[in-house]
Amino acid sequence: MARNSSHTAGLRVQLPLLCLLFQAAIIILFSFFVRYNHETDSSLWHQSNHSNMDNDFYFRYPSFQDVHTMIFIGFGFLMTFLQRYGFSSIGFNFLLSAFSLQWSTLVQGFLHSFHEGKIYIGMESMINADFCTGAVLISFGAVLGKTSPVQLLLMSLLEVTLFGINEFILLNLLGVKDAGGSMTIHTFGAYFGLVLSRVLYRSQLGKSKHREGSVYHSDLFAMIGTIFLWIFWPSFNSALTHTGDGQHRTALNTYYSLGASTLSTFALSALLNREGKLDMVHIQNAALAGGVVVGTSAEMMITPFGALVAGFLAGTISTLGYKFLMPILESKFKVQDTCGVHNLHGMPGVLGALLGALVAALATHQIYGEGLEKIFPLVAKGHRSATSQAVYQLLGLFVTLVLAALGGGIGGLLLKLPCLSSPPDSQCYEDQIYWEVPLEHEDEVHGHLRSEDTETQA
Amino acid sequence: MARNSSHTAGLRVQLPLLCLLFQAAIIILFSFFVRYNHETDSSLWHQSNHSNMDNDFYFRYPSFQDVHTMIFIGFGFLMTFLQRYGFSSIGFNFLLSAFSLQWSTLVQGFLHSFHEGKIYIGMESMINADFCTGAVLISFGAVLGKTSPVQLLLMSLLEVTLFGINEFILLNLLGVKDAGGSMTIHTFGAYFGLVLSRVLYRSQLGKSKHREGSVYHSDLFAMIGTIFLWIFWPSFNSALTHTGDGQHRTALNTYYSLGASTLSTFALSALLNREGKLDMVHIQNAALAGGVVVGTSAEMMITPFGALVAGFLAGTISTLGYKFLMPILESKFKVQDTCGVHNLHGMPGVLGALLGALVAALATHQIYGEGLEKIFPLVAKGHRSATSQAVYQLLGLFVTLVLAALGGGIGGLLLKLPCLSSPPDSQCYEDQIYWEVPLEHEDEVHGHLRSEDTETQA
Amino acid sequence: MARNSSHTAGLRVQLPLLCLLFQAAIIILFSFFVRYNHETDSSLWHQSNHSNMDNDFYFRYPSFQDVHTMIFIGFGFLMTFLQRYGFSSIGFNFLLSAFSLQWSTLVQGFLHSFHEGKIYIGMESMINADFCTGAVLISFGAVLGKTSPVQLLLMSLLEVTLFGINEFILLNLLGVKDAGGSMTIHTFGAYFGLVLSRVLYRSQLGKSKHREGSVYHSDLFAMIGTIFLWIFWPSFNSALTHTGDGQHRTALNTYYSLGASTLSTFALSALLNREGKLDMVHIQNAALAGGVVVGTSAEMMITPFGALVAGFLAGTISTLGYKFLMPILESKFKVQDTCGVHNLHGMPGVLGALLGALVAALATHQIYGEGLEKIFPLVAKGHRSATSQAVYQLLGLFVTLVLAALGGGIGGLLLKLPCLSSPPDSQCYEDQIYWEVPLEHEDEVHGHLRSEDTETQA
Repeated sequence: MARNSSHTAGLRVQLPLLCLLFQAAIIILFSFFVRYNHETDSSLWHQSNHSNMDNDFYFRYPSFQDVHTMIFIGFGFLMTFLQRYGFSSIGFNFLLSAFSLQWSTLVQGFLHSFHEGKIYIGMESMINADFCTGAVLISFGAVLGKTSPVQLLLMSLLEVTLFGINEFILLNLLGVKDAGGSMTIHTFGAYFGLVLSRVLYRSQLGKSKHREGSVYHSDLFAMIGTIFLWIFWPSFNSALTHTGDGQHRTALNTYYSLGASTLSTFALSALLNREGKLDMVHIQNAALAGGVVVGTSAEMMITPFGALVAGFLAGTISTLGYKFLMPILESKFKVQDTCGVHNLHGMPGVLGALLGALVAALATHQIYGEGLEKIFPLVAKGHRSATSQAVYQLLGLFVTLVLAALGGGIGGLLLKLPCLSSPPDSQCYEDQIYWEVPLEHEDEVHGHLRSEDTETQA
Repeated sequence: MARNSSHTAGLRVQLPLLCLLFQAAIIILFSFFVRYNHETDSSLWHQSNHSNMDNDFYFRYPSFQDVHTMIFIGFGFLMTFLQRYGFSSIGFNFLLSAFSLQWSTLVQGFLHSFHEGKIYIGMESMINADFCTGAVLISFGAVLGKTSPVQLLLMSLLEVTLFGINEFILLNLLGVKDAGGSMTIHTFGAYFGLVLSRVLYRSQLGKSKHREGSVYHSDLFAMIGTIFLWIFWPSFNSALTHTGDGQHRTALNTYYSLGASTLSTFALSALLNREGKLDMVHIQNAALAGGVVVGTSAEMMITPFGALVAGFLAGTISTLGYKFLMPILESKFKVQDTCGVHNLHGMPGVLGALLGALVAALATHQIYGEGLEKIFPLVAKGHRSATSQAVYQLLGLFVTLVLAALGGGIGGLLLKLPCLSSPPDSQCYEDQIYWEVPLEHEDEVHGHLRSEDTETQA
Repeated sequence: MARNSSHTAGLRVQLPLLCLLFQAAIIILFSFFVRYNHETDSSLWHQSNHSNMDNDFYFRYPSFQDVHTMIFIGFGFLMTFLQRYGFSSIGFNFLLSAFSLQWSTLVQGFLHSFHEGKIYIGMESMINADFCTGAVLISFGAVLGKTSPVQLLLMSLLEVTLFGINEFILLNLLGVKDAGGSMTIHTFGAYFGLVLSRVLYRSQLGKSKHREGSVYHSDLFAMIGTIFLWIFWPSFNSALTHTGDGQHRTALNTYYSLGASTLSTFALSALLNREGKLDMVHIQNAALAGGVVVGTSAEMMITPFGALVAGFLAGTISTLGYKFLMPILESKFKVQDTCGVHNLHGMPGVLGALLGALVAALATHQIYGEGLEKIFPLVAKGHRSATSQAVYQLLGLFVTLVLAALGGGIGGLLLKLPCLSSPPDSQCYEDQIYWEVPLEHEDEVHGHLRSEDTETQA
């Protein structure tokens, strides 16, 4: 195990320091700015004549818990596919998420809900914080195995901030609709991570090549992540849509889109393999593209038919991306994308944004009825035509791509600071440099046998 | 690895073709027939003066997500117990489910909710689609490891169709009650799968015997499935019962029934082992029988005491089945039942149907009060006596058994078509013929050692 | 494998006997005493003019299912970290829980809700039964690997009974608030288990030392437990708080407290390791302390800032406990605490109780508004001052510690009965004495190689 004192010092000093510093700063900022909102404050809630069942908790908490499961179990286990990076995958996913959801509460609070010097929090802000964390974890997927936890925490600090700004521009300034975050979460997270990975390009990464694959059981652990993401994606897309038909329709559309992306992924995976064998990488990832692609449009009247077509295309494009685009990305564009987030979040995210624009352009009062006011308030009030709403949607995509690229670039430069104890090229995808890893019983036996063999030979 | 070009061709051509064909057909049928219902359509929902909280979403979505978890995580991981069939277990479970829920939406829609040429969908149809998928996965358990994905997709196509017909006869024509599906899901799925497995009997299956068992960690993966099925079974049985006391009582009865089946399973498992050791096969499966056995009666006034007795019996019968009946089924009846679905779904399902008839026979207005109209509408309206309702329940069981056996027989003959690239007898329970399987680090070491040993000996 | 006929007889006779006896007794008691309450009984529910959505099911069932997941998946997999005790960890967790939730329904029913000779059950009693089960599983963690299932069932019988008595004294007699169970669940479960473990002290436990650690994949299985506990803890603390702002605020406070405890755990874990490496034991356990520490106060107006500070301290104390206190507990106090429940549940539980007293002392009508009546009814009605409520809270902690210690002592003496087939010192942390464990493919190969080596050497 190649270890040197500066690396050890980096870990032992920088990681604790950063965690404690960030947490202390958050605690101080919370004490000044963060307060219960009228649904969580005992006094405020009881001032008005609510029925308890009107509390937002009962409309959103089950969806919130599904989203929470996706963030911590879904993303976390999805990344455990690497044979010797399971502790780091699930562990750093845990650390980054626990930090990001706190930091995001502040950033989004300052930008979206700052009233008279205070941020008021409740279920909606918690879901928003988890959403922002999702974007960070997508970027994490692009640099998985090649960055230290210190680098990752700094990346999260920056990305959460820019996520908040981008979301503010899209939702508040441009009046863009993006309930499930095809743009704000998937496109932003993917291209932020990809540009960042480009800046951190390692020409000698081949030295860790033997550790880049999976083993049998690590692929099964990853499937825990995949399936939890898949089953709860309807909750993800619908968690913040308007109550009533909105949440209901969004969940339904996502459900069917995912079904179709799963079938197209299986079809393409077998078709593209010269022996007709299925590839776990495709199944673990591309089958999820149906959730990403309807992120913008699932709350709209995309129709069940439309949801199926969207999912089918997303699964197809994503599998093709894993097969053909990913090697090119690395060889030609020097982007090393560990989890293939370009295929799962990047392309399907962009496609989802375009689809959202298309469905927005087709919106009429006839199709939406009185519900138009909830989905496209500016169109319903006559401030915008449906076409103009579509143009704003496209503008939102453009802003997202620009901000993500800029942010990823800045982030990459920041993470290149030599003091941040980035893992050496030969120690990527390796838990042992960050974790106390238990000695396997098998290792012992193997070691034992090996030495015996040597003796025998000698 | 025994592979031949026709097998490869079969995989590479047939599986993609079938996936794409099925998905294309579904998309086309959806475009013509499937529409949002009044709870998911923006225009329809806002036409009436609903409060948003009246939307069915808030009554059923949390239960739906639990059911969804059971289908994809529960059934999926339960079947990963085989040492070298984990990818196929979780992967084909994923594929079959993604297909079946779409296809079932159409079949059930045509049969149950076809109005003026359209199928209207929402939460209830989604839960029904997942329920039907459950039956397919039960059958999958009977033939696990011995069928190609192409065969399995064809099985699903047929089974979903017959499931819809059987359910239509029971619920719509006979007025049978079966909220949690003791008959429609468990009995139907089990006997369909068992008869199908009988038709596909392999006398030379012993060639794959060494791969039929579990390894230590595969049993732990299977426990993920078991526990998720166990904890969410109350949601399964209650997902489609009437709102209010109905869902509440159903969940409660299932909760206690499962508790009792777990204790009787542990008792019997230790008692039947000559060293008093527990058997993972029993714990993983028979402990769940308590959920199956109250599938019909849990929404009725079975009483908490009745739920405990039912669960206790189901766990006992199921464990005895694994110990004594399963070997006989194979040796005498030539039924090779990989997961023992006869013990977990077959016998407890039939027992549950009988229990449902008994509880129905005891129904009085005094016990149910005004609620009688919801549980036994035909009895409440005086169209039927309680006894006659019980007779109809028994008739429902009979119809289910007949249709399942017929369907399984036809299915078996269909799956015997030689072009369907069934795995050879010596390659059953083996992932490598369908999946790119990563080379284990240990394999490398073992291989290395073996050759060294050989050299040493030579 | 050291096995003798008395050990086998013990397993084969005692475990089945106890399971069957307990289950039979429970069934009989249920038949006499347990009835549906007015929310689950068809007749009672329809007597009054409820809207179905008023049924408690819709306010509590999603939280109940999260709690249920924590009990069976969370606790169960958290304990699978041991390399050769995974079957027992998840299996005995399953058995104890299935028994405890039934037995607890009776004990809590007799104590809390015995009306005219009957116990009336529904969602609240189910959540309470799961809560009590949580305490049993905490104690299980202290003696994990060193006790037979027969001993554990007897422990559960006793602990559930005492849990009910302690809870009755605190909530009903002393008017103490403890919604998330810092005292009644965590403190009680931890000190009951620790004292019991003290009585069962094994001076020769070193003989099983080589089996006490984890292996790579067992640590990943344990992380399934950790993460599910972590994400659903907000549901745990809020499951039984009053509806509306109460559940909402409790979930929010727990969410932030857990975020902070995760960051302080990562910081301390790296800081305390001489190479700056993270320790899975800390991450798997101490990161959860934030949920324990706000168990009493999360429903109060602790403020988001207060929740963060509490979580931060709990993570810190817990990690320090694992590092420094645990070795001393064993060497000086002869307490062998397998899972370190003193660090995760004991100290954070006591801290949580103290915090609850502090926040209660600060309660004013100004802060709580009309909600004061719900959180501190005795204070709102003027029967008590806030300070006096705080004193009662402290008294509750004292009573809990006394009863837990007494109960653990009695339990330990009971479990020392020589007939209970406790595992020998050399067979602790070993599945093979209780389970049919599959022979690993690797074992075969190793065994094969070993004998070859021996031959070669000879």
